[in-house]
Amino acid sequence: MSRYMSARFAGLNAYTPGEQPRDMDYVKLNTNESPFPPSPQVLAAVRGEEAERLNLYPDPECTALRQALARQYGVEKENVFVANGSDEVLNFSFLAFCDKENGVAFPDISYGFYPVFAQLYQISAKVVPLRPDFRLAPEDYSNLGCTIVFANPNAPTGLALSAAQVESMVRANPDHVVLVDEAYVDFGGESCVPLTKQYDNLLVCMTFSKSRSLAGARLGFAVGNAALIEDLEKIRYSTNPYNINRMTMAAGIAAVESDTYYKENCRTIQENRAYTEEQLARRGFSTLPSKANFIFTSCPDMDGGALYRALKQRGVLVRYWDKPALRNYVRVTIGSRPQMDAFLAAVDDARKEI
Amino acid sequence: MSRYMSARFAGLNAYTPGEQPRDMDYVKLNTNESPFPPSPQVLAAVRGEEAERLNLYPDPECTALRQALARQYGVEKENVFVANGSDEVLNFSFLAFCDKENGVAFPDISYGFYPVFAQLYQISAKVVPLRPDFRLAPEDYSNLGCTIVFANPNAPTGLALSAAQVESMVRANPDHVVLVDEAYVDFGGESCVPLTKQYDNLLVCMTFSKSRSLAGARLGFAVGNAALIEDLEKIRYSTNPYNINRMTMAAGIAAVESDTYYKENCRTIQENRAYTEEQLARRGFSTLPSKANFIFTSCPDMDGGALYRALKQRGVLVRYWDKPALRNYVRVTIGSRPQMDAFLAAVDDARKEI
Repeated sequence: MSRYMSARFAGLNAYTPGEQPRDMDYVKLNTNESPFPPSPQVLAAVRGEEAERLNLYPDPECTALRQALARQYGVEKENVFVANGSDEVLNFSFLAFCDKENGVAFPDISYGFYPVFAQLYQISAKVVPLRPDFRLAPEDYSNLGCTIVFANPNAPTGLALSAAQVESMVRANPDHVVLVDEAYVDFGGESCVPLTKQYDNLLVCMTFSKSRSLAGARLGFAVGNAALIEDLEKIRYSTNPYNINRMTMAAGIAAVESDTYYKENCRTIQENRAYTEEQLARRGFSTLPSKANFIFTSCPDMDGGALYRALKQRGVLVRYWDKPALRNYVRVTIGSRPQMDAFLAAVDDARKEI
Repeated sequence: MSRYMSARFAGLNAYTPGEQPRDMDYVKLNTNESPFPPSPQVLAAVRGEEAERLNLYPDPECTALRQALARQYGVEKENVFVANGSDEVLNFSFLAFCDKENGVAFPDISYGFYPVFAQLYQISAKVVPLRPDFRLAPEDYSNLGCTIVFANPNAPTGLALSAAQVESMVRANPDHVVLVDEAYVDFGGESCVPLTKQYDNLLVCMTFSKSRSLAGARLGFAVGNAALIEDLEKIRYSTNPYNINRMTMAAGIAAVESDTYYKENCRTIQENRAYTEEQLARRGFSTLPSKANFIFTSCPDMDGGALYRALKQRGVLVRYWDKPALRNYVRVTIGSRPQMDAFLAAVDDARKEI
C-alpha cells in the first residue's frame, strides 16, 4: 500500500480468484466454468458486424439485452439490471443497499466476495454460521435488521434452499433487501425470480458465467422490483454507465436466444454430477447433495489440502479452503465426462501413494 | 429511489452520458468517438479463436495486455493498470486516493464525472474555477492539501497544459496524488507518462475510446509508480477482478500493435480539426485552440442551446451545457471530412433562419 492510499483500506483483504497456473495444461475444475463452448449463435454474433462498430459507445441503457432477459424471465425491462459480471451486481448492491447504519448479514460459509465488499465499504457485517451439517437455516435470518445476502445454491457446498424457504426469509425481513445470488441455480435449483413480482425487497442476482458458457465475456444481471433496479441504475450511472461493451452485449443477446443449447448442457452437467457423486461414493467419499455445477466432497483418507496438492501434481485443479470447517473437503467443478474421468483417475492414483 | 437505498445517496446526481437518439440516422458529433473503425488487426483478433474460449474466465492479471502497453509506453507491466473504460480507472482512483479526511480538487469546468465520484463516495471536493479565458492555471493548485484530478487536454474546452506545467503541479503537491486524465492526449497534447518515472504521486489515465477507435469495447488504463498501481489493484481485486473480458483484452492487444494505423487516424483528425476551425472562423465563430478530437466553439448569433437544437433538427448531434460560463458554446466532435462538411452545411442552413 502506497502512502497515498486511504488509511481505511489498511486492513482490506481483497478477493483471491481461483488460480490459473500456466506451467502446464491442467484439467481445470477449480473455477466452476462450463466445459462447453458458447452456442453457435453466440460465436456468430461475436464474429459478425458488431466488431466494425467498436469505435462507437455501446447503448448505456442496454435496451436490447434487458428486453431479451425480460422476455426469458417473464418480467419487464424495468425489472432487469445488467452488469460487468455478477460481481459488479453484488458490488453495486452493497454500495446501494448497505451503509454504516444498515449493515449486511451473510453466511460464514458462502461466496468469499461478500466479506470483501463489506470491508471495502466499511459496512458492519453479521456473519451467520451455517448449521454443522452445512445447512443454511432460514430461521437464523429473522429480525437481523439489515440487508441479507446469500448464494442459493450455496457455494462451496452446493446445497440449495427451496423457493418457499427463501420466501420465508424475504417475508421475515420486510424492511430490508434480501439479495439471493443464484449464480448456480440452473443446475437443479429453484429460482426465486417469480417471487420478485410479489416482494419489493427481493433482488435475485444471476450470471452468464456458469450455465451460459460466458465466464470470459463478463455478464451478470439482477431481477427485482423496478424501484430496486432504479437504485442500481443510479449507482451504475455514477460509476460506469457504459459498463457493458458491444461484444458482450451481442454475445448476451445471442445466449438468451440459445436457451435450448444451454438447457441441454445443464442436463449433461447434472448427469455428470450424478455419475461423479456415485463414483466417489464407491470410493468412500462423502459428498454433499449438490444442486450446482460443482460438488463439495470429502476424501476418507486425505484432507482437502493434501488431496488438492496430489491432484495438482497429476494435472487436475480443484479448490480447497484452509479453514477449520472446510478442511476435509475439496470443491470440484463438474465438467465434461472425460474431465470427470480424468479427475477420478487422478484421485485413484493419488490414493495409491498413501 | 426506493426506501431500501442508503440515505446517503438521496442527493446523488448521476452522470448524464451524451444522448443516443434512435429516431433517425444522425451525424453523431456529440460523444467524441472516432469516426474510423478499429484496425484490421483488431477486427481479426475479435473474430478469431478467442470467442471459442469465452466459457473460461479471462486472465485476472491481464498480463499480455499490460505487457503490450508497457512496451508501448516504455514502462514495466507493474506500472500499468487496466480497467473497464477510463471511467473505471477514475472510479477506483477516487475510492483509493480520497476519503473524508483527504478530499479532492478539480476544475469547475472539466469532465462532468469528477463531481459525481466525489458525491458517490462523500469526498469533500474543492472546485477550482478556470480563469475567465477557460485556462487552467497550474498555480491555482498549489497547497490544496488534497488529491487533484483534471483532464489534459481539458474537456469541453480542448485547451492543454504542457508537460512542464503539469510537472509544476505534481511538484507543488508532493503529499497527494495528481491524477492527469489524458483521454484526449493523442490529438496534439503532450503526455506526462515519462514523468511517472520521476514522481511517485503522478498517475496518468488514458483510454482506448478516442484515438484507438474502441469506445464500444470499454478499455482504459493508467500508468504510474508501481505502488500506486498496486493500490488500484487492491481496489480491483476487492470489486471485480475479472473486469476485462476476453474479447476486449484481445482487441486491446491488437490495438496496441496497430499503432501506425491509429497515429495516421489522429493526424487526419487534426487536419479535419484545422479545416473546421478555419471554416468556422470564416463564419465569425470563436473557437478555443483545441488539442483534442473536439472543438469548443461559439456562434456569433445563436447561443449553445439554440445552435444545438437547430443542428439536431438538421440531423447533426453536438453537445452543449446550460451553465452560465458555457452557454454560448457547443462542443463538436471532430469526425471525418464528410461529417464536418455536413456539420458546416447544417450550421449554414440553421443561420439562414435567424
